Amino acid sequence: MQTLPLHNLREVDPSLLENFPSSQKFYKEGSSKDIRVPFRKVTLEDTIKSDGTREKNPPLYLYDTTGAYTDPDQVIDLTKGLKPTREGWIDKRGDTLKLDDFSSKYFHKRFDDESLKEVRFPNIRKPRRAKDGQNVTQMHYAKRGIITPEMEFVAIRENQLIEEMKDNELLLSQHQGESFGANIPKVYTPEFVRDEIASGRAIIPANINHPEAEPMIIGRNFMTKVNANIGNSATTSSIEEEVEKMIWSIKWGGDTVMDLSTGKNIHETREWIIRNSPVPIGTVPIYQALEKVNGVAEDLTWEIFRDTLIEQAEQGVDYFTIHAGIRLQYVPLTAKRLTGIVSRGGSIMAKWCLAHHKESFLYEHFEDICEIMKAYDVAFSLGDGLRPGSIYDANDEAQFAELKTLGELTKIAWKHDVQVMIEGPGHVPLQMIKENMTKELEECFEAPFYTLGPLVTDIAPGYDHITSAMGAANIGWYGTAMLCYVTPKEHLGLPDKNDVREGIVTYKIAAHAADLAKGYPYAQVRDNAMSKARFEFRWYDQFNIGLDPDRAREFHDKTLPRESAKVAHFCSMCGPKFCSMKITEDVREYAKEKGLEDDKAIKEGLKEQAEHFKEVGGKIYI
Amino acid sequence: MQTLPLHNLREVDPSLLENFPSSQKFYKEGSSKDIRVPFRKVTLEDTIKSDGTREKNPPLYLYDTTGAYTDPDQVIDLTKGLKPTREGWIDKRGDTLKLDDFSSKYFHKRFDDESLKEVRFPNIRKPRRAKDGQNVTQMHYAKRGIITPEMEFVAIRENQLIEEMKDNELLLSQHQGESFGANIPKVYTPEFVRDEIASGRAIIPANINHPEAEPMIIGRNFMTKVNANIGNSATTSSIEEEVEKMIWSIKWGGDTVMDLSTGKNIHETREWIIRNSPVPIGTVPIYQALEKVNGVAEDLTWEIFRDTLIEQAEQGVDYFTIHAGIRLQYVPLTAKRLTGIVSRGGSIMAKWCLAHHKESFLYEHFEDICEIMKAYDVAFSLGDGLRPGSIYDANDEAQFAELKTLGELTKIAWKHDVQVMIEGPGHVPLQMIKENMTKELEECFEAPFYTLGPLVTDIAPGYDHITSAMGAANIGWYGTAMLCYVTPKEHLGLPDKNDVREGIVTYKIAAHAADLAKGYPYAQVRDNAMSKARFEFRWYDQFNIGLDPDRAREFHDKTLPRESAKVAHFCSMCGPKFCSMKITEDVREYAKEKGLEDDKAIKEGLKEQAEHFKEVGGKIYI
Repeated sequence: MQTLPLHNLREVDPSLLENFPSSQKFYKEGSSKDIRVPFRKVTLEDTIKSDGTREKNPPLYLYDTTGAYTDPDQVIDLTKGLKPTREGWIDKRGDTLKLDDFSSKYFHKRFDDESLKEVRFPNIRKPRRAKDGQNVTQMHYAKRGIITPEMEFVAIRENQLIEEMKDNELLLSQHQGESFGANIPKVYTPEFVRDEIASGRAIIPANINHPEAEPMIIGRNFMTKVNANIGNSATTSSIEEEVEKMIWSIKWGGDTVMDLSTGKNIHETREWIIRNSPVPIGTVPIYQALEKVNGVAEDLTWEIFRDTLIEQAEQGVDYFTIHAGIRLQYVPLTAKRLTGIVSRGGSIMAKWCLAHHKESFLYEHFEDICEIMKAYDVAFSLGDGLRPGSIYDANDEAQFAELKTLGELTKIAWKHDVQVMIEGPGHVPLQMIKENMTKELEECFEAPFYTLGPLVTDIAPGYDHITSAMGAANIGWYGTAMLCYVTPKEHLGLPDKNDVREGIVTYKIAAHAADLAKGYPYAQVRDNAMSKARFEFRWYDQFNIGLDPDRAREFHDKTLPRESAKVAHFCSMCGPKFCSMKITEDVREYAKEKGLEDDKAIKEGLKEQAEHFKEVGGKIYI
Repeated sequence: MQTLPLHNLREVDPSLLENFPSSQKFYKEGSSKDIRVPFRKVTLEDTIKSDGTREKNPPLYLYDTTGAYTDPDQVIDLTKGLKPTREGWIDKRGDTLKLDDFSSKYFHKRFDDESLKEVRFPNIRKPRRAKDGQNVTQMHYAKRGIITPEMEFVAIRENQLIEEMKDNELLLSQHQGESFGANIPKVYTPEFVRDEIASGRAIIPANINHPEAEPMIIGRNFMTKVNANIGNSATTSSIEEEVEKMIWSIKWGGDTVMDLSTGKNIHETREWIIRNSPVPIGTVPIYQALEKVNGVAEDLTWEIFRDTLIEQAEQGVDYFTIHAGIRLQYVPLTAKRLTGIVSRGGSIMAKWCLAHHKESFLYEHFEDICEIMKAYDVAFSLGDGLRPGSIYDANDEAQFAELKTLGELTKIAWKHDVQVMIEGPGHVPLQMIKENMTKELEECFEAPFYTLGPLVTDIAPGYDHITSAMGAANIGWYGTAMLCYVTPKEHLGLPDKNDVREGIVTYKIAAHAADLAKGYPYAQVRDNAMSKARFEFRWYDQFNIGLDPDRAREFHDKTLPRESAKVAHFCSMCGPKFCSMKITEDVREYAKEKGLEDDKAIKEGLKEQAEHFKEVGGKIYI
């Protein structure tokens, strides 16, 4: 893999910074000037009608996760990090203070180590914390009726702009969603956002120490989100590669990124990632804690874990996966499994519980953890340490026992106004997926569900982005709020840059399919725009409206590379004579000539049809 | 693309002939010596237990579509074609005769053309036809209570051998399927097969002129099948490439292949493919008929079409897609669509109907077509010419009007004992898929459904194998009998060899996910075997049990290429310390030491748990 020098990104790999063809950054302003909500505006070509006249096609405005990287007005310097655009909002609330120094012991150990200078982010900012007795979570504000700029930001962000399509019935037409999306509004308002957060049905992961992040919301009454896992392991990767993977993730549409590093320089890698990330960053703090005790799970202590939480909270991690739901009594339930405990965090905690023969410190100290979370507004992602690792183990006793405990913990977190989402499986066959969603909503009181896949079969290593996206599309449809991607390398090795792209695009498909099925407002606009471009042989638009314009064009060019083919009314799949789209054009022309295309003709067609059915026995025509 | 010389395949691309690693051809004999049902036997490594002792793992027997190509005892010579193994069965029935000459005029036109000698298959066999007044379809035999060797063959084939696992509870364990699979038996018998065929719920596409094909069955109470579309277009490809794509398709598990050629030498290309194909071959005869009238749809006539049917039936095509459901009155229903008519056959017929302003000759001559079909046992695949080509057009009036007509035609075909399957969409969002299956079963009297995808969104050109496989997995679960693959090139260009592999493997995933969900007998054995290998770090077995052993190994080797990594108890994803599987092993060891792993300890764990739930309010534990 080509690596990035860490100074000026614009000089090294322009493809990371370029927007897609015909796409431009577009900001919509909120109630104040510092609320600038990004969209990607895709300009479309004109339709050329059969009489040669042209008709404008309105631009598409798409949800944009790429932050400053696609804004030509911004200078990107990875060594300085992104602009802390949320800083002003946080300041204004007056409930936090800037600390003189970092609170974590481990931070100082790393910072004082001269040998780390080379890999350390050079412009570390002092951390911020809630003033004593203050609670700075979005849930806390929401419960007190306060609409924060973050809430307004996401309300605007979820209303994907359709102003220029106002009268375009065709493009705005959408099939009805399923009952699972019954509470999705037609228009998002800041008040709706506030209410969803107050009720616990949605979260805005937004650590006060990650002011570079653009607010986004995770909840089943909003657009389905996608998370990308990155991070090194002991055998592979470098800081440069991980920063590049983060930027690559958001280029393809990743909504949040989890840094799951378990290899070298975990602390420093994370700092680089957070300072340069416009999307929320999640971590699993137990990974780093284990690193601190040289991989011996039994040696983990609450003190080490606590220091790790503070270290990461002050760096700006937006959500923590915490496996507090694994109770000692559940561990024997996994002994009869085919694949035991497959969650890394889960297996670490299970080992600890057995070794000490007592409840885990995560469970015992859960309220202490809440105290830390609310001082920085770190959200919980309650880990499913006992998720099934195979079809065989799906929906078993161990899994659902833990889920129930996650529900209990949710209640405790909410008592502290700490935001919560619940992690879900894993490996589940199609017919058993819905039970997961139903149980989660019941047991965890509608806290957002955040699932890994699930994989619907175990037999396709090398294609597990696909096996899992099938499950993800379905569970998203049933109500999962965020889908954690799986890459083609799952079960085989650490993903590289290309795997990240495959994983994200595959999961954007699953998320969008879920949005269509739930009835997310205007989700179908993009499908309709694509279909119209397809029918009109606007090849450039077909590439550009899609999730991966580069690949679409590359595939088209493989058989018809010439520019002239981009205006041809056929492709190499069927050739010119057999293109059904082309023939349909002819059919329409023909019908027009014969006066068959207008409404009257259609009605006549229907009349004829009605008569036919009378003849064949008067059955109702559906 | 590298092309094949057409003489001895074994000399050119050995990868097309090699079985996967640790796989061997295995035949199970039926009630007579000439019923030899192929399986792929995958030999697995021993489990090495923690005390160093070894335990055998039973081999897996998998459904095998590769025919003679993976049988080292067979010599493959593409210029001679495969052995006509069904010849004896057909002969014995005594209801057919070998013709002295071909019946099709077009055949003779091609055969007499000296300039085609170069591209012509050199060993053309004289065709066979039913004796006057005879009906040679599998349905005809089935209705009269006759169990043919073909039926016995598929009964054995669908019972994937598990004899060596008889007492292996773990591997044989399977979750219950959904109601959609309620009529799937535990063991397939020839009588069950006969009954399914007699009722029209399943078909065995087996033209008497394609005796090289190994019988396979398509029906929702059997394993879900996958079709691969190949074929040239006017802009791309050669006979060599198409034959290679056919062999490539069956290597990856394609159950049938459709030759959709619309380019040069359609007749000759098809001959090469059929003579060398161990799987049924389907076509869309209207494509070739259109070619014969130089692409002018209006010039098509019943006579030309009829000659084409006979030409192809005598070559050995096993099923014909016939778009007889497009009635004149339905054409205006498509005028308001976003993407009109996207089926090539559909658009051709629509154009014809409008031009002549009358019902299509396919509809008018449907009984004549049945007469031809039953003389060769060609099955109908009743085409959905009005399937939606976009999410916008899904489940509309035009689509369902045609479906109802397909049901009427099914009844007519069954009157002639001609086997029928029904083609289905297309582009349908997740929440509207089930309606397609429900309506198909009702309107078409449970004839097998054969769907293309459906794609659950339009926004991902370059990834439409995935968007469509999501829909395919779901509709397969609901009861679709065969899934027509879509490749990554869909909507962009003609698929190449690599696209065929991607498309098939992706669809094998969808089909298998559907089988698990429906409760196909022993479907989960393969998942369980994979999961066991995974948990035991048997890397070679993980590669070999999967759908694509080559890719799994290639991906694993990217980060850990050394052979020693194939026995390592970790991979590069998490590294040695963070592997949850490894930690779970430790947990089990630890639990064992403490006496926690036996049943008693588990019960104690449950007791503790029960007490806990008593404490928290006596709620029932699920």
